[in-house]
Amino acid sequence: MDKYFINRRSVRNFTDRPVESSLLNEILTAAAKAPTCGNMQLYSVIVTRSPQRKAELAKQHFSQPATNAPVILTICADFNRFTRWCQLNNADAGFDNLESFISATADAIILAQQITTIAEQEGLGTCYLGTVTYNAPEIAGILNLPELVVPVACLALGWPDGPGIETERLPLEAFVHEETYRNDSDQEIISLFKSKEQYPANIQFVKENNKDNLAQVFAEIRYPRAMNEAFSQKLKDYLQSAGFLK
Amino acid sequence: MDKYFINRRSVRNFTDRPVESSLLNEILTAAAKAPTCGNMQLYSVIVTRSPQRKAELAKQHFSQPATNAPVILTICADFNRFTRWCQLNNADAGFDNLESFISATADAIILAQQITTIAEQEGLGTCYLGTVTYNAPEIAGILNLPELVVPVACLALGWPDGPGIETERLPLEAFVHEETYRNDSDQEIISLFKSKEQYPANIQFVKENNKDNLAQVFAEIRYPRAMNEAFSQKLKDYLQSAGFLK
Repeated sequence: MDKYFINRRSVRNFTDRPVESSLLNEILTAAAKAPTCGNMQLYSVIVTRSPQRKAELAKQHFSQPATNAPVILTICADFNRFTRWCQLNNADAGFDNLESFISATADAIILAQQITTIAEQEGLGTCYLGTVTYNAPEIAGILNLPELVVPVACLALGWPDGPGIETERLPLEAFVHEETYRNDSDQEIISLFKSKEQYPANIQFVKENNKDNLAQVFAEIRYPRAMNEAFSQKLKDYLQSAGFLK
Repeated sequence: MDKYFINRRSVRNFTDRPVESSLLNEILTAAAKAPTCGNMQLYSVIVTRSPQRKAELAKQHFSQPATNAPVILTICADFNRFTRWCQLNNADAGFDNLESFISATADAIILAQQITTIAEQEGLGTCYLGTVTYNAPEIAGILNLPELVVPVACLALGWPDGPGIETERLPLEAFVHEETYRNDSDQEIISLFKSKEQYPANIQFVKENNKDNLAQVFAEIRYPRAMNEAFSQKLKDYLQSAGFLK
C-alpha cells in the first residue's frame, strides 16, 4: 500500500511559490474521473487567486491561517448547469429539492477529496476550510454563485512551507462496525476515546482552554450548541433562497 | 502524475474471491488519515458480508448489479459516538442540527472517497450505490443505526470480474470557473454538453428510452421530478426522526 495515505497531513502554511495553472488544470482533469452520481458531475470549482478576493473570502473563513494559500478552491454542489441544460432541451428538471442537494453535495465532496489526494501526491499542500457552510451566503455573494449552486467544501492549496502537523486518530474499532451498528456501553465509549484524550497536544489543548476535559473543549469552546444552532438556521434559510429547500 | 487517477473506472461485477478482513482493515486504517472536521471523525462504517443481510440491503438499493459484491460498506454521518462521549464527560453536546449533519456528511464522504482510492490502488473494484439516501430509513433499520447516525454513502467492494466501463466527462471549462462563477449563455451551455450528447453510449441510451435527447432521459426517466420530490420528503422526515432536523 502506498505509504502516502497513512503518512499524509494537512498543511496550513505555504510558500509564495505560485501553483501553475497548467498543473492545477491537470489535477482537476484527473480528479473529475472520480465517481459522480449518474455521471452528472453535479459540482463546480471556483478558483480564487486574486489577492483582493482571497482577502474577502478569508474574512468569511474567520481569517484562519490556511487562507493565506496562493489558491483557494471553493467546491460547490451545482445543479444549475444541469438544470439549464435540461431546460434548453425541453426536459422538466426537478432538482430544486433536498435529495438533489444531498446528491450534489456528495459529488462535490468526492471531487474535493480526489483533488486533495492528487494535489498532495504532486507535492502540494492542502487544507479543508471547514467554515465554508457557516458563511455560505456571504461566500456565494463574493463568488457570484447563481441559484442551485451552494459551496460545500473549500480547499487551501499551495506549496508547503514545512511539514503539516501530525494529528491522532481514533482506533479502528471506534468507527468500524461488523454487520450491524454495535451498541457500545458507556465504558466502551470512554475507552475508545482514551488514547485521543491522552494525546499530548490534546492535554495541552484542555489546559489552555481551562476546561475539565477534551470533550468540554469541543462541545463548549470549539463547537458550542448556540453557534451550531445559529449556523443551522442560517444554512436552512440559505438553502431555501438557493432553491434547494421548500 | 499517477496514471491511476485518469484511468480509473467504477466496477460493478465482482468475482467470488473474498476481500480478506486484514486487507480491509489496512485500507480503513489508512483511509482514516483523510482530513476530518476538527479531527472529530464524524463517521462510521458498517461492513456487511452476511449473504442474508446483503440481500436485504440489495432490495433497498433496487437490486442494482453491484450489490452482488462480497462486501458492502455503508458509510454514515455519525454524531452519536461523539455526542455520547461529550455527555459522559459532562459537556453539552449541541450536534442535533442541520449544520452538524452537513459537517458529518462531509466527513463521511471524504472517508468514502479515500477508501475508494486506496482500495482501487490495491486492485479492488468499487462502486458507489447512489441510492443510499433514497431508502435511508430502511437501511438504518437493517443496520440497527441509532439516532444521529445517517447513511450517506454506500460502496460495493470486491475483486473485479473484468474491467469497468469507461464513462465520458464534461470538458474542464464546464465545471471550473476563474475567480467568480461564469454566467454562461444558453449557447455556451449547449456547447459544453455537446461531446457528452455525442458519446456513443449516450446516443444509444436516448434511443433505448424513446426520448428526443439525453437531457430528457436524465430528467424524465432516470431522475424524474416526482421521484426526487418524494425522496426529498422522505429524507426530510428521516433526518427529523434521526435527530438532525427540528
